[in-house]
Amino acid sequence: MRIAVLGVGLIGGSVGLAARRRLGAEVAGFDPHSATLERALEREALDAGSDSVSDAVRGAEIVFCAAPVGALPALVAEALEASDEHAVVTDVGSTKRGLIAGLSDTADAERLIGGHPLAGAETAGIEHARTDLFEGARWYLVPTQRSSGLLYDRLHRAIAELGARPLAIDAETHDQVMATVSHLPHVIANVLAGEAAATLGEDSERLPDVGPSFRDTTRVAGANPGIWVDIFASNREALAGGIDAVVERLRRAAEMLRAGDAEGLAEWHREAMANRRRLLETELVGGELRQLRVSVENRPGTVAEIALALGRAGVNIEDMALYPAADMRTGAVSLWVAGADEAERAARVVAELGYTVSPVAAGE
Amino acid sequence: MRIAVLGVGLIGGSVGLAARRRLGAEVAGFDPHSATLERALEREALDAGSDSVSDAVRGAEIVFCAAPVGALPALVAEALEASDEHAVVTDVGSTKRGLIAGLSDTADAERLIGGHPLAGAETAGIEHARTDLFEGARWYLVPTQRSSGLLYDRLHRAIAELGARPLAIDAETHDQVMATVSHLPHVIANVLAGEAAATLGEDSERLPDVGPSFRDTTRVAGANPGIWVDIFASNREALAGGIDAVVERLRRAAEMLRAGDAEGLAEWHREAMANRRRLLETELVGGELRQLRVSVENRPGTVAEIALALGRAGVNIEDMALYPAADMRTGAVSLWVAGADEAERAARVVAELGYTVSPVAAGE
Repeated sequence: MRIAVLGVGLIGGSVGLAARRRLGAEVAGFDPHSATLERALEREALDAGSDSVSDAVRGAEIVFCAAPVGALPALVAEALEASDEHAVVTDVGSTKRGLIAGLSDTADAERLIGGHPLAGAETAGIEHARTDLFEGARWYLVPTQRSSGLLYDRLHRAIAELGARPLAIDAETHDQVMATVSHLPHVIANVLAGEAAATLGEDSERLPDVGPSFRDTTRVAGANPGIWVDIFASNREALAGGIDAVVERLRRAAEMLRAGDAEGLAEWHREAMANRRRLLETELVGGELRQLRVSVENRPGTVAEIALALGRAGVNIEDMALYPAADMRTGAVSLWVAGADEAERAARVVAELGYTVSPVAAGE
Repeated sequence: MRIAVLGVGLIGGSVGLAARRRLGAEVAGFDPHSATLERALEREALDAGSDSVSDAVRGAEIVFCAAPVGALPALVAEALEASDEHAVVTDVGSTKRGLIAGLSDTADAERLIGGHPLAGAETAGIEHARTDLFEGARWYLVPTQRSSGLLYDRLHRAIAELGARPLAIDAETHDQVMATVSHLPHVIANVLAGEAAATLGEDSERLPDVGPSFRDTTRVAGANPGIWVDIFASNREALAGGIDAVVERLRRAAEMLRAGDAEGLAEWHREAMANRRRLLETELVGGELRQLRVSVENRPGTVAEIALALGRAGVNIEDMALYPAADMRTGAVSLWVAGADEAERAARVVAELGYTVSPVAAGE
């Protein structure tokens, strides 16, 4: 397999390392900074360095665009334009709506599948790239309405082989979820650091003695400005909406406090504990892999539709395979999920989409 | 020295352990739960268990009230009432304004000095008590307008001997600071957990894949309901004010996002980084202890006034001693601070209060 990596920093470099060592792929790389490209070659993250996007993507079956969020729309468009007609082009950006919306009407939208690995945000640079960066990490895949099922399948499997856990999600939901669980905590950290600095007096020499809760809450304040300002900007609608919702919740808390509503505060506090527990402590129930065979029309969007519905239902697709029929108009897709309960749930979800689905006995 | 500890959970038990082992004090304890008292005796945190407050405080020179915040006003009042006329009564509650305001007009206000050790919030119970719980921890002391200098001195020294770093602060500032650096992070954690639960759908089975920032920011969501609901309620004015300020800052952030103000966002983000660094990374510059001798009138409030002014200026009093003159109407107080710069600053602050202050050469 030939893979191209455009942008060979932490993420791109790690894709290169993992693709070469785990997939046995031949990896070509491009980076606007020649020193970075040089370093990636030294670290053996690439088989070859290219001095242009078009050179790097030649013959590649998968193209990973691993530039900062602000540079992605142009880079992905260029990659789609320059790459082979059977290449799937993906990215690794932290927001997806703008990118997908901007390109979903282009001629090459069939070959575009957005991506977002949840890994490596803390340390940037090719120096920190490593083969196992994605081991066990969630890797969101964001197909367009028109993404090819064959290409989705190829990308999904490659990403699983890189060590990650791919999960389909639509761009809107992705950005909303990220706004809440990632971008909003950064905004809050910034705001709380500002408020504390103001309260404690800009010109005071007094050092506050702060507890661990303040340290925790402000840990990411002002983190990686080069990356985060772009992320905020590229997810501004969802993020501003999230801020509005938090403001409303804070207002209600202040009201309860001012009203001396001890009962309400106690209830609110109990709910917070339950919410956090539910959000963070639940784990996927694993189990033996179960196979589901789904009969599908072999048209763009089918596999994406199924993957999205399963993603929404929280079903993790551990593996998948496409079996186009001889006429190339119908076919079947096999999905593997972990455990009997998960398999039953997946079957229900897929059946509700109108597809014929049949469980396959283990060993078959 | 005889010490009484009223409430022998984590904090009270640790005071008992440290007072017995470090101060060589004789410690009497009371707790409304006889099993807790029993356990404190087993753990050798006490020399004797009492079945009433009045019994425990008999003959004590220092009385520590270590009950939950909601129970403190009544307990401290009872302790002041029952204790000897030369006993200093203090507490360990997380908020100070309500307690101090409620008792500062009573006959015994001279003997009341509020306290707040920043230690041990995470694990409650006598089981977790330990001799070194306060080692190096900030311990705020909140004198009233009328607190006796002799008693302040006694308490300050005892707390330093427990291993903590006492610092005088007025009740208003204390509660404001705590609202910002401790209570507000808890409110924000609750709110963000609620917002995430709502965004991700109460009935959804999808598990979000959350990054470390979300975990950090919500770590204390719903923490210790028995303690925190009381703390929120007892600091409701400062906390509601802090929430208002955070709401205003969030609104401005949302505005910048909606306006696509990349320049403003970048500036805001840089400031956040600078603020957090300033708040968390600065450390007291240590140095050799320097002594300052201050001539004072020996009247209630003098020592408290000096300690407060130094606290406001960020000067840490490492040690102090009172030298009443023979007529008991004037006297001197010696203060030890770390390092030459700190000593110079302390001298300036004290001089500005109108006192005569003279540095004492090392070894004198």
